[in-house]
Amino acid sequence: MMAGTTREDLIELLQDWSYAAARMTQGLDVSASGAVGGSPEAPPDDTGEALGLAANGLTITFGVGPTLFTAADGTDRYGLADRRPALLTALPAFLGDDLEPDHTGGDLCIQACADDPQVAVHAIRNLSRIAFGRARLRWSQLGFGKTSKTTADQATPRNLFGFKDGTANILADDQAALDQHVWVGDGDEPAWLIGGSYLVARKIAMLIETWDRVRLSEQERITGRDKAHGAPLSGGQEQTAPDFSAVGTTGQPAIDARSHVRLAHPGLNKGIRILRRGYNYVDGNTDLGRLDAGLFFLAYQRSPAQFIALQRALSRDLLNEYIRHVGSGLWAIPPGAEEGSYVGAGLFA
Amino acid sequence: MMAGTTREDLIELLQDWSYAAARMTQGLDVSASGAVGGSPEAPPDDTGEALGLAANGLTITFGVGPTLFTAADGTDRYGLADRRPALLTALPAFLGDDLEPDHTGGDLCIQACADDPQVAVHAIRNLSRIAFGRARLRWSQLGFGKTSKTTADQATPRNLFGFKDGTANILADDQAALDQHVWVGDGDEPAWLIGGSYLVARKIAMLIETWDRVRLSEQERITGRDKAHGAPLSGGQEQTAPDFSAVGTTGQPAIDARSHVRLAHPGLNKGIRILRRGYNYVDGNTDLGRLDAGLFFLAYQRSPAQFIALQRALSRDLLNEYIRHVGSGLWAIPPGAEEGSYVGAGLFA
Repeated sequence: MMAGTTREDLIELLQDWSYAAARMTQGLDVSASGAVGGSPEAPPDDTGEALGLAANGLTITFGVGPTLFTAADGTDRYGLADRRPALLTALPAFLGDDLEPDHTGGDLCIQACADDPQVAVHAIRNLSRIAFGRARLRWSQLGFGKTSKTTADQATPRNLFGFKDGTANILADDQAALDQHVWVGDGDEPAWLIGGSYLVARKIAMLIETWDRVRLSEQERITGRDKAHGAPLSGGQEQTAPDFSAVGTTGQPAIDARSHVRLAHPGLNKGIRILRRGYNYVDGNTDLGRLDAGLFFLAYQRSPAQFIALQRALSRDLLNEYIRHVGSGLWAIPPGAEEGSYVGAGLFA
Repeated sequence: MMAGTTREDLIELLQDWSYAAARMTQGLDVSASGAVGGSPEAPPDDTGEALGLAANGLTITFGVGPTLFTAADGTDRYGLADRRPALLTALPAFLGDDLEPDHTGGDLCIQACADDPQVAVHAIRNLSRIAFGRARLRWSQLGFGKTSKTTADQATPRNLFGFKDGTANILADDQAALDQHVWVGDGDEPAWLIGGSYLVARKIAMLIETWDRVRLSEQERITGRDKAHGAPLSGGQEQTAPDFSAVGTTGQPAIDARSHVRLAHPGLNKGIRILRRGYNYVDGNTDLGRLDAGLFFLAYQRSPAQFIALQRALSRDLLNEYIRHVGSGLWAIPPGAEEGSYVGAGLFA
């Protein structure tokens, strides 16, 4: 948010965003006034680059960060301090964090996903534009592909280390798991967030060239799965449950105790699961000619504590030698707007 | 290329690239030795992130820059100085150039295009990896969408200013136009380049937020076309030829003399045409919260003189107030490899 914006400005922004998002997700421009909107003597309401394109599965998700409720200097700019979810505080520092302030935090967030990047970019751009004078873009990240499987008929996509990623992700039609692990539900606080979720974003740079020089058996030991098929090293197929007690030919555990699959496994983390909805990214290359690339990790969960516990469990992950967390954010995700209302209305009720 | 590489290293690199490109464009990994290539005790031949994905229309195009023939210090590293096409010299400076050295030039270039960005990124990454110790990535650019129409049944895509872009582009099935304007042909020099082309790359940053505040009538005056349909302001439909003598209601020319469509029009540029095959890009945002976005302009032509003439004609373009050329490159594109040979073999014959 920009200095000088009021509570009313914030409400109007959320209303304007809700209206525009509802239109864009139907494949319409952001304006109700015509194909490019407005009169010849005014700037077009819609920037136009998605005209003629269908909605392409566009989804738009809004979130509110801890600093919206209480600014860094402690001020309660929008009269929201007593509405802050107790769980919505800055994430703790994790071992190995190398966060860049320019890619961390934010009072508000928007995730736009579509099958056509032009449609997703159009959404972010027009929502940013609508915010003019009220909020400004702090950071943004363009991603591609799907890093995680969210439907049963979808093959598990691969991350930029070449491994299947998200084999055990919560599926979008697994209502019981969503209710248990993803949606803020009955008994949770605050009431305005019930039906919503918490989004954790982590920009994870991957040391691509270093990884590419690691021998296959070591890549698989680090991951705990085989590269070709994604099967756990204890045997079976991709969907076979890993057997952490299995012993390999050398007498060592078939799945290394510090492998990624073991440390992240719900069975060793009190059953904790999260809904991953992240993307691969490539931001060109570094001065050394290395790809500036990695995983834009996005996870939805009922409580930030789920991510925090998993991330702490991963502090001993063998994979850490090949990745760096360079950006981070946590936002509460209000439930979708009710008919005739707007996203986040419950915050101000 | 890296210091110390020899003529033989360069030949082997082009051979290795040709082999890998032929496999990847068929949807195969870069290795002939298995699903992820190699033995468990060696790094995989292929980085793996495109395993299980089809070719997705992948095309890979290689080019050789002026500095491959004669290095900046004048040395003839590869015994190629006398093979350099006379037309392959550094592009002249253009009015308003604001080129960043980190996004300009290069001894070699690769353009990889695919319907799935994961496939295109996989190609660039594996070709970069194959070059290890011989050449290193100087700069790269990820783009999305199609900025230009290259088939008759394709709707003209829009650039990030929201306008249809490439209405008059050369179509891929217009053999006569390709022969006249794009392919180096009979009577051209040198012989090894016949059947090839010249590629000009320009990274054109677009001042998105400034443009978005320009009223519609002014956006259309600058462009010379209407925003909704792409029709010339002299009237008609998108494909109607612009009438530069038409007079508008105010007595002024219907199409401004300094509009983009007029200055770039073949009719006012001795019939010059080019084949555009560029993409939109978004590189996140600037410290000011503005989108760091624009057009990665890529054009193929029979001679660099075509681009040079057009770009000079555009020096008075009203659009220049809203764009900045921040990267540039020129490469000669050898014809595709003959069966059993490799891309660029003619260079060494």
